Formats: sequence, C-alpha cells, structure tokens
Amino acid sequence: MNHQVRTVFIISDGTGITAETFSHSILAQFEIRFKQIRLPFINTLEKASQALLEINHHAEKSGEKPIVFTTLVNEEINAVINQANAMVMDMFHTFVAPLELELKVKSTHAIGQFHQNIDTESYRNRIEAINFSLAHDDGQSHKNLESADVILVGVSRSGKTPTCLYLAMQYGVKSANYPLIPDDFERGVLPSELKKYQNKLFGLTIQANRLSEIRNERRPGSKYASLDNCRYEVNEAEAMMKRENITWLSSTHKSIEEIATTILQVIKIDKPTD
Amino acid sequence: MNHQVRTVFIISDGTGITAETFSHSILAQFEIRFKQIRLPFINTLEKASQALLEINHHAEKSGEKPIVFTTLVNEEINAVINQANAMVMDMFHTFVAPLELELKVKSTHAIGQFHQNIDTESYRNRIEAINFSLAHDDGQSHKNLESADVILVGVSRSGKTPTCLYLAMQYGVKSANYPLIPDDFERGVLPSELKKYQNKLFGLTIQANRLSEIRNERRPGSKYASLDNCRYEVNEAEAMMKRENITWLSSTHKSIEEIATTILQVIKIDKPTD
Repeated sequence: MNHQVRTVFIISDGTGITAETFSHSILAQFEIRFKQIRLPFINTLEKASQALLEINHHAEKSGEKPIVFTTLVNEEINAVINQANAMVMDMFHTFVAPLELELKVKSTHAIGQFHQNIDTESYRNRIEAINFSLAHDDGQSHKNLESADVILVGVSRSGKTPTCLYLAMQYGVKSANYPLIPDDFERGVLPSELKKYQNKLFGLTIQANRLSEIRNERRPGSKYASLDNCRYEVNEAEAMMKRENITWLSSTHKSIEEIATTILQVIKIDKPTD
Repeated sequence: MNHQVRTVFIISDGTGITAETFSHSILAQFEIRFKQIRLPFINTLEKASQALLEINHHAEKSGEKPIVFTTLVNEEINAVINQANAMVMDMFHTFVAPLELELKVKSTHAIGQFHQNIDTESYRNRIEAINFSLAHDDGQSHKNLESADVILVGVSRSGKTPTCLYLAMQYGVKSANYPLIPDDFERGVLPSELKKYQNKLFGLTIQANRLSEIRNERRPGSKYASLDNCRYEVNEAEAMMKRENITWLSSTHKSIEEIATTILQVIKIDKPTD
C-alpha cells in the first residue's frame, strides 16, 4: 500500500450518490489512499466557481492534481469545472456523446432527469415498498401478504431484514419476511399462512458457526446463540426448504446487494425503472 | 417520445447494481424507451460466451445494435463481450486506463474489489446501522441513543423513517428518529430524552397539504389526516424547531437521496467508505 493520499472530488448537480458509488468501485482498483470530498447540488455557475476554487486550492496545497469525478449535465457549469487544475473524469459527457451518435437522438440535457425524480411511479413504488417491508418484517403481519412480491424465509439472523429493505429501497420490490422458528421445526411444516403463497417464497440460510457468531453479539452465551442450537436450526430449516421445494441461497459470504440480485434473477419481478 | 424500444444490457462480474443505477441516469437523458436486461455475476469465460450469444441474438432479432454497459474487470472476459454486435460502453476501462497514467500505479484488476466486500468495516457498519435504525424507529427506544450519529425529528409521516434507513444502508450512518406529536406541542418543549442530544438533532418538515394527502392514504377521513390538523402540527413543529435551534429542511419536493445528502452536508459525519 502506497502511503500517498490523493484527494478525490465528486461533483454533481444532484446528490452525486451515483457518481460516488461508481468512483468508489473504480478507485478500489488502486492501492492508494484517497480522501473524498463530495460537492453535491452544484447547479449554478456561482456554485461551480466556488467548487473550482476549492479544487485548485487542494491542488496547490498538495502539489498534486486532485481526481475529479463529475456528473454535470449543464455545459456551462461543466466548462467551469473543466478549467480546474485537476484530472477531470466526466462521467456524463463521456457516455452521452457516443450514445447521441448511436441513437441518432440528441440528449435532453435535463438536469432533473439525472437525479431521482420523486414524481415517478418508480419512486412512489420504492417508498410504498419500504413501508410494506417494515410492516411485514419478521412475520409481524399477515395483512396484504398477497401483495408481496417476495416473502423471505429463514432462521432468525440469517439476513432477511436487511435484504428485504434493500429490495424495497433499491427496486421498489415489496418484500415480507418470516422467521422459521423451533416451533415450525417441531410441527415439521411451514407456517400455515405461508403455504398459500408458496410461489413467492425464497429461503435464506447461513453457516451454523457464522450464525452463532452473529447471535452471540446480540445475546452472548444464550442457548439461542449456541453453536449446537444454531446447527439444529440451520439443519431443520434447510430440510424444510428442500421438502417444500423452496429456492434458497446461503447468505454466509454474500452482501445484501448480492443476495438481492440473486433473488431478483430467480423471482423475475418486472418493475418500472424510471 | 420516440416509439422505438432499444435493448440495453448491463453486464457485470458482480451484481451490476452500480452500472445499472448509472446507466439509468445516462439513459434518462434520451427520449427513447429502453428495455433493460441485467446479466450479473459474469465471472467466467463460459458465462461471457453465453452473454455474447444473448446480445447477438437480440441484435439480430431487432435489427439494431443493443446498448451494452459493462463493468468487467477481467481483460479476457471483457474481450469476449467486446466482440458483440453492439454498442459497448466499457465503464471500467474507460476510467481505469487514464487513472493508471495519472496515478502512475497499475490497477490491481481485482474482481473482488469492484463489488461490495462483506469483510470490511464499512459493510459491517452498514448492517449495524440498519439494525440500529430499525430499533430506533419512531421513538421506539431510548437505549444507546448516545451512539446515534443523527436523530431525525418531525411530525408523523414527514419522511423520517425512509431517510433513516437510507442513511444507514448507503452510508452506515446510525440514524434514530423521533416523532413530534401533539403532546409535545401542548407542553411546548422537546421530549426530554432528546434535549441532551441536541447537537445530533435534524428536523424534517413538509407542506401541510402534502402531509394531509399522505396521511389520508393511510387513514382516510381521519382527524389525524385532516388538512386543519396537518396545518396545526406542521406550524407547531416548525415553531418548536426554530425555538430549539434545530436545522431542518422540507421534504415536500425532495427524494430520500436528496434529504440524506443534505443531512450529511450539515452533520458532517466521517465514516470509512471502503
């Protein structure tokens, strides 16, 4: 690991969240430490001039060109930032220009388009899905379960709740989740309220030792968290999911983004995306 | 609006979520309808060949080149997709190549780096923050409130919960939220448990007519949802926030991304980002 620290600016006329996420992925490819400064809502020439001063100040102070990722739709604002004593990565025009040629259509250059517009079906779906997922977390409610897009099942602490919230927030997918508990294993059948939604069920499982670690953080030394009990619950849950023909995956080494992506591939939900 | 529908592929060796979000922003600049096909986890030459067939099949069927956004770190896999009869927008190499020159360092070309790695402090913080935000939603718990990064206050249905969850999920920011209710307005002071955390408080407000609309979806015709009551609550909440010197914003026309970005600018939390 190199010890230099390079300054990175994220400059956007909106929130800059997309540019930030993308630039993190790119910069993670370099074994250099970066210090990030995000300048969101740069939507006037005045704010652009302020940003320009700040970038040039950093360049002078450090003796190195800052790296600047921009998503600035407006040409004049973009031109101001392009004067900076910096390496500017223009994420907008780099892709829009060749697309205009290929699609034989001019881009609208609408600033409002680039960030999340709240007056869209897609945005309303996301907010509605968040509320739905909160109301249907951890088997809290059977109300309106028929309007769920997916119902996650699995033992307590297998990753159901964050996955549901992610599916709702990112995709507007209405996700409920139901814990599989020792009572269910003793009865040997799925909770009856889930039976009728079998085509919406998706299972999460997790390695018993990882589950035990997670549960011990919450309830140290409890039977609930013990490795023996975790082994029992995981084995029973996996056996039940096999028996009931539920598609499932192991969350042990997967991020919520990876789990959500896999679920979407399996359940094939068609949601409007803009 | 043009009536043609153009096929767009998102091809990634990870989830493709970053590429998907970014491509939506770019494509929203064009008044053309797009049909998106996301092909995640393309991390072997075999999967790349399958993807190539699928792209070429679409090209042939539609008589038009599909648009392909890729974030493929591996050169060989990338080379396969580049053979496609398509317009390929290589989001990875487009930016990595000039960065290698500027930084005078070779990129690691590590696939694992490009998507969310769960063994990082940043990922653990996000999961912990989601759990924290759920436990501290709607004033549910005063426990560990001192470890909150921010505490949102505002009338019921002003947007506190989705904003807290977004802050937690995207940034690992531990966000609690407290409703301001008519009891508080009658007493004329902040709930006592909040007083000691005044430097963590951030307010959300909302236009009374919009609030009334939102509440009427939940409880149609109720006093709670009536315009008069919403006006009363909003006025009282804003007066209280002024009196208590709490920074606040109106959520009426803002997405949760915009609200979260503004809050982060104000509270200046320093969290590790990779």
